[in-house]
Amino acid sequence: MTIKEKAAAMKLDSTLMASRPAEMRNRALSAMIKALQANQAEIFRANDQDLAEAAENKVPEAVVKRLKFTPQKLSDAVKGIENLIAMPDKVYETQLVRELDEGLTLVRESCPIGVIGVIFEARPDAMVQIASLCIKSGNCAILKGGSETKHTNKILFSLIAQSAAESGLPENCLFQAEQRDEISELLSCHESVDLLIPRGSNAFVQYIMDNTKIPVMGHADGICHIYVDKAFDIDKAVPVLIDAKTQYTAACNAVETLLVHKDAVDLLMPRLNQALREHHIELRATADIADRYDSIQATEEDFETEYLDLILSAKTVKNIDEAIVHINRYGSHHTDCIITEDQEAAEYFMRMVDSAGVYQNCSTRFADGFRYGFGAEVGISTGKLHARGPVGIEGLLTYKYKLFGNGQIVADYASGKKEFHFKDCM
Amino acid sequence: MTIKEKAAAMKLDSTLMASRPAEMRNRALSAMIKALQANQAEIFRANDQDLAEAAENKVPEAVVKRLKFTPQKLSDAVKGIENLIAMPDKVYETQLVRELDEGLTLVRESCPIGVIGVIFEARPDAMVQIASLCIKSGNCAILKGGSETKHTNKILFSLIAQSAAESGLPENCLFQAEQRDEISELLSCHESVDLLIPRGSNAFVQYIMDNTKIPVMGHADGICHIYVDKAFDIDKAVPVLIDAKTQYTAACNAVETLLVHKDAVDLLMPRLNQALREHHIELRATADIADRYDSIQATEEDFETEYLDLILSAKTVKNIDEAIVHINRYGSHHTDCIITEDQEAAEYFMRMVDSAGVYQNCSTRFADGFRYGFGAEVGISTGKLHARGPVGIEGLLTYKYKLFGNGQIVADYASGKKEFHFKDCM
Repeated sequence: MTIKEKAAAMKLDSTLMASRPAEMRNRALSAMIKALQANQAEIFRANDQDLAEAAENKVPEAVVKRLKFTPQKLSDAVKGIENLIAMPDKVYETQLVRELDEGLTLVRESCPIGVIGVIFEARPDAMVQIASLCIKSGNCAILKGGSETKHTNKILFSLIAQSAAESGLPENCLFQAEQRDEISELLSCHESVDLLIPRGSNAFVQYIMDNTKIPVMGHADGICHIYVDKAFDIDKAVPVLIDAKTQYTAACNAVETLLVHKDAVDLLMPRLNQALREHHIELRATADIADRYDSIQATEEDFETEYLDLILSAKTVKNIDEAIVHINRYGSHHTDCIITEDQEAAEYFMRMVDSAGVYQNCSTRFADGFRYGFGAEVGISTGKLHARGPVGIEGLLTYKYKLFGNGQIVADYASGKKEFHFKDCM
Repeated sequence: MTIKEKAAAMKLDSTLMASRPAEMRNRALSAMIKALQANQAEIFRANDQDLAEAAENKVPEAVVKRLKFTPQKLSDAVKGIENLIAMPDKVYETQLVRELDEGLTLVRESCPIGVIGVIFEARPDAMVQIASLCIKSGNCAILKGGSETKHTNKILFSLIAQSAAESGLPENCLFQAEQRDEISELLSCHESVDLLIPRGSNAFVQYIMDNTKIPVMGHADGICHIYVDKAFDIDKAVPVLIDAKTQYTAACNAVETLLVHKDAVDLLMPRLNQALREHHIELRATADIADRYDSIQATEEDFETEYLDLILSAKTVKNIDEAIVHINRYGSHHTDCIITEDQEAAEYFMRMVDSAGVYQNCSTRFADGFRYGFGAEVGISTGKLHARGPVGIEGLLTYKYKLFGNGQIVADYASGKKEFHFKDCM
């Protein structure tokens, strides 16, 4: 069966999937936990095979670290599913009940989006997380994981799909694409697939966005900023900056650029510079900082670059407005932070910066579905439509308007014979 | 100034626009009402000019009817603005307050999308409605109306823009594009424009969707269905069908296809057929109906056609599931209705039909922002992401996540030194 045929079958099954009760979807998640735990040995054996092939193919260390599936990661994944099971059901949540006129009632109710295609990096826990989010939200999903985890993904997917089927979910609710060339086929399935969520490198996400008519949710870049305002606490600034740069340097929510108020430079830089050296972070700064603190001088290009590496660009700004304009111009509308004790400045910054996440006095690395209490995430959106920031269950739902009448026609309202009275009942 | 330069200036002003308080936005709307009323004579004079040119250019009757601006239409437009002023402000509405850990609080707050481009048909009231919705929702807007109303739009826009500026809104909050070739320039402004809302013919909307990287909200087709179930009330079925076809035949929410349960045909058809004839509606039906009620026989193509004309296609189905499959296959996910007294059948139909609007026992023509009590609409979305159905203020808003901390770093949570406790405070 081609991806196109499979997607068409899923589209037909998607209304069935959407109509399955919450208990059945939760039962599938419970079955998934049992299956994962009962087949641990087999999962780790498959993962060893992936690791052996990765060693053979000289796959970079960072990728190996992600593709290695450990008992700890399995237990975290199980905890994530347990969180999802415990969460209230958001599918078929009534969002509005409005009497338009006597006997004519409008109801807005949430419902699943339909068929979702997720293309994700070589991380076995991502497979579990994404599949469980799609099941909890009543969506059908086409899953394509990174090829470096093919053995692990194969066994994980078969356990997940079996748990879903055994619990009564429709046959076509989940499908695993295994070949890389299936991605381009998936991109042409705009008649059956409602949403694509690509995760991976900037270039990859941009490629997806440019080559499909299917709506795409996600982010291409992650150029996050930390702005140190003049009224800042150095005991917060330095640890937050180091955490945001080093806690997971390759993540999209790692900080890339430091902006410093001109009056904050002298207090901040000596201690920060020392911490940067201790953590082997290279500083690329505007002349005023570079000259005095022995750093490389930043070029215009530095401020447009997502390093994903132990490099930090830095720039002095004359006031908060210059920082805001810089962020809105060079940033990727992902997550940006102000370090300040001045609450008014914080509120102003957080209102004026046009990003999915605007933070005060904490690490940009908090931008994550699990840390926001969503249980898990399918990705982070820097788009402004539909979902913004980490995307959990809510981002996988849409809504429909139901109108209940008893024979009402519009002509009566157009002629003035009848009138709407709009009464909200919830 | 080119559209590109103008859009870039608006992008810069969009955060200013977003930070203007509700009172200022409402003041601009009040000023707009005063300006429209004080300059009626001039507005109608400009409209006469458009009408004269339309007569010269032999513009079709239906278009002339729309472009004619009457005292009644002006008073309706004013009433629409008054409704918007009276509505609670939705910008900066707190949607979530969650304590992630002590001293670390996540807040989700709604905010304007930014810069919105709306391309709309030759209807002076559309200009007023769209501009006022954008102002109320704190968005900057690029407006391009149909060329047949250029004189009316020019005066309307200058009154609106002046009202906005006088009330303190940013200089670049509104811009009117007047040339048709400016549309293609607008399509390339993906760095400055956050959302495009095209209204018009299927072909036009599809063209826009295919030729821009800017997210597009709207609908290309409007193939709406009415399904008459076996347990139906003929006193509801016939008037609803006639209203849905004739009340505004050229509208996207007019019915195009009738589906009839096989056991309902004999009761429905004689009376319906008579009503169709009285209203000069041509019936194109499947053989079983066509043979007995002297109608044209429908082809496969009929069920894929948005007639926007006094033509109705009809098909017999053996049960509700066949109706649902037909609608999900041939429909455009706009608005579809079931006529039934069987509540269980209605609920099933309304859950399984994958459309923005699913109705029971009332005309599909109710699918409209004003009739839903939104005050006005910028369009109707058949997409499932972001806004679905009629789009009012809520559809013009997005949200951002604000995270307030006092120096928290992710490393502490990753190492287990600290733990999240997720406590929702609203």
